Amino acid sequence: MNIKANDPFLMSWLEVPANSDFPVQNIPFGIFKYDNEEPRPASRIGDHVIDLSALADFGYFDKLEIEDLNVFYKPVLNDLFALGKPMVRKIRNRLSDLFEDNNEELKNDHEARNNALFRIDEVQMMMPVEVGDYTDFYSSKEHATNVGTMFRDPDNALLPNWKHIPVGYHGRSSSIVVSGTNIHRPKGQIMPPESDQPIFSPTRLMDFELEMAFVTCKETQLGDSIPVEEAEDAIIGLVLFNDLSARDIQKWEYVPLGPFLSKNFGSVISPWIVTLDAFEPFRVNGPKQDPPVLPYLKSEGKKSFDINLEVYLEAENQPEHRVCRSNFKYMYWNMAQQLAHQSVNGCNIRVGDMYASGTISGPTPESYGSMLELSWKGTKPITLPDGSRRKFINDNDAIIMRGYAEKDGLRIGFGESKTKILPAK
Amino acid sequence: MNIKANDPFLMSWLEVPANSDFPVQNIPFGIFKYDNEEPRPASRIGDHVIDLSALADFGYFDKLEIEDLNVFYKPVLNDLFALGKPMVRKIRNRLSDLFEDNNEELKNDHEARNNALFRIDEVQMMMPVEVGDYTDFYSSKEHATNVGTMFRDPDNALLPNWKHIPVGYHGRSSSIVVSGTNIHRPKGQIMPPESDQPIFSPTRLMDFELEMAFVTCKETQLGDSIPVEEAEDAIIGLVLFNDLSARDIQKWEYVPLGPFLSKNFGSVISPWIVTLDAFEPFRVNGPKQDPPVLPYLKSEGKKSFDINLEVYLEAENQPEHRVCRSNFKYMYWNMAQQLAHQSVNGCNIRVGDMYASGTISGPTPESYGSMLELSWKGTKPITLPDGSRRKFINDNDAIIMRGYAEKDGLRIGFGESKTKILPAK
Repeated sequence: MNIKANDPFLMSWLEVPANSDFPVQNIPFGIFKYDNEEPRPASRIGDHVIDLSALADFGYFDKLEIEDLNVFYKPVLNDLFALGKPMVRKIRNRLSDLFEDNNEELKNDHEARNNALFRIDEVQMMMPVEVGDYTDFYSSKEHATNVGTMFRDPDNALLPNWKHIPVGYHGRSSSIVVSGTNIHRPKGQIMPPESDQPIFSPTRLMDFELEMAFVTCKETQLGDSIPVEEAEDAIIGLVLFNDLSARDIQKWEYVPLGPFLSKNFGSVISPWIVTLDAFEPFRVNGPKQDPPVLPYLKSEGKKSFDINLEVYLEAENQPEHRVCRSNFKYMYWNMAQQLAHQSVNGCNIRVGDMYASGTISGPTPESYGSMLELSWKGTKPITLPDGSRRKFINDNDAIIMRGYAEKDGLRIGFGESKTKILPAK
Repeated sequence: MNIKANDPFLMSWLEVPANSDFPVQNIPFGIFKYDNEEPRPASRIGDHVIDLSALADFGYFDKLEIEDLNVFYKPVLNDLFALGKPMVRKIRNRLSDLFEDNNEELKNDHEARNNALFRIDEVQMMMPVEVGDYTDFYSSKEHATNVGTMFRDPDNALLPNWKHIPVGYHGRSSSIVVSGTNIHRPKGQIMPPESDQPIFSPTRLMDFELEMAFVTCKETQLGDSIPVEEAEDAIIGLVLFNDLSARDIQKWEYVPLGPFLSKNFGSVISPWIVTLDAFEPFRVNGPKQDPPVLPYLKSEGKKSFDINLEVYLEAENQPEHRVCRSNFKYMYWNMAQQLAHQSVNGCNIRVGDMYASGTISGPTPESYGSMLELSWKGTKPITLPDGSRRKFINDNDAIIMRGYAEKDGLRIGFGESKTKILPAK
């Protein structure tokens, strides 16, 4: 595997602000829209958006021998990712070459530069992929333990299957939206405490869930499986994922078939798909799995990633305030295990599927990834800078998630996933 | 509403065999493939497949003022249905006109006829729509009661939310396949009885679920809802739906987030989407709903349909044998209520979504819609014509579902959904 872009000493001839999530080592993929033009694929360095269609126009991908250059002109990245991980790697390496400090090929091609470069503040970021199917896992032991403790039995917080199965369920694809999309507080059925009649009401317990999601770049046929040791070849990259949740609707609806309307009114992702390749320097071992998992789930090597995750609340006309600091490395089940499990029964995988981690809570109270846990079911409200308190999310509160890995001066990040909760319609 | 095609006295100049599901009053929509040509939209009368692209070629839809005739050339029906229910109705009426007995417009246009008509046995039927999202409801009281009686508490078989909510959950879109597609027995985690360690094994309790599914023809925006009284305007038609289920995998995985790998290895639909319009003559009142439902779920008028449903097992080299005879009218929650519920929280609907009913069991043992119920958890095996017995589905057994409405000499049906269970890979 030759991932040139990982070289920590690479510099770009494009300016990269200090602490940017997008050095020349990142080279993420997204879809941008400029003015009334068609949405199209892009990458990003610093605050520069790089129009891949323009680079294709000027022949900068010709040497890669991509069969159909139309992938650089599509309004979603599915076809580009369908080229497969080795070719996407070549594209990233090519971009890394073109923008590294001592390469003058594009730097001196002013016509191409003028066509290909946009400022991030003059474009709109769009959904990067068309999501065929979306799965939400439940893979943080701390989160599952917290929920089990609050709602079931503190002495048996984890259900019997939890350490054997990367538990997950299917979610709604249509309502996955990109950062910047605001979401109306959902209405639904709630069983009020001490009542025996449900009511119809806007949710009173609006929550976020801090998650990450991976995107697939491989198609399998019905009946086939992806072995755990090959699963990462089918994963192109990651986004931040805010799995908005209405806790009171969830409580009343979820037995026996799982969460439904409490989740499917909106999930908000960060716009840039950051490749697994970019996170290579940040691999770590995951938590020890005990009891041992079944052979089809046994994964070797460092399959977890040390990625800092943060959640901020921004009340109306107030500065943002950090309420959570967690890390992707806390996940008990890794992505390779999740995808191996998803496909072990022959369920077919498509390019552009999205697989979310489940709430990523860590071991300490400030690392809990939802208001449910942070306020411990509303018993420990959070105080915001203006003195107001939050058990759950108020109307007009914005939720901002950020994520980045950092080591030896190299920082690779996602930017953010931001959404404001609007009053119920 | 002017649905010419409902006239029970209409006859076609095309031959329609006795007891055909496809008289000129049906006019369903499907996607067919002939030889190596591109898949394209079709309808069906008797055993004749009508190539809609050929009729468009010859100008037979010109009078309808459809903005973009390309809808008749697409490999899925999503764009055609996106024209909306009134226009799809016009297309059906036009087809009804063209093929009725005393209309010689197409009958005498031999070039168009030769291009447009195929025999059903010389074409392959394909997936009719690209399914954006798929929901599986749980709307048969008899089924929910049977399951609750077997697995929980016979005295409180229905869970507290069941009569208030059309309970449902999200399923996997990628693995919905068309009749004729065979499915490998899935492998997965099972907790054997009286063990405390799960094993990895092909399912030992392979089952079907007799369901119907409706397909949407309307797109809504995130945050919007479809009121129950407008919901049928967003439903174009129905298919038979075999929700294959691995009961042992299901039992071990489904608490607390619902069924996952026990369901997503394959669901098999009938190829023709039969319109709600075609079923107009078969409307009936649904079961009385007591306690009364919340206002957003209150539906007026006849929103249920009297459609006979049958399931046959066909063991290898054996004749098929009917194991179940049920009816769509048994559903406690109707389709309008299901769709109103699905969208009441602002979840956005897309054209081509699929919403399955859940297992349709009736009041009598022979009307139970799954082997789980028919064999009462394996305690009452079914005997096949060759004397062999089935508690669940064996390898190389085929499952055939059929459905049709019949009244006053008019029969409207689906054909069938057929799949054979192949040995685990």
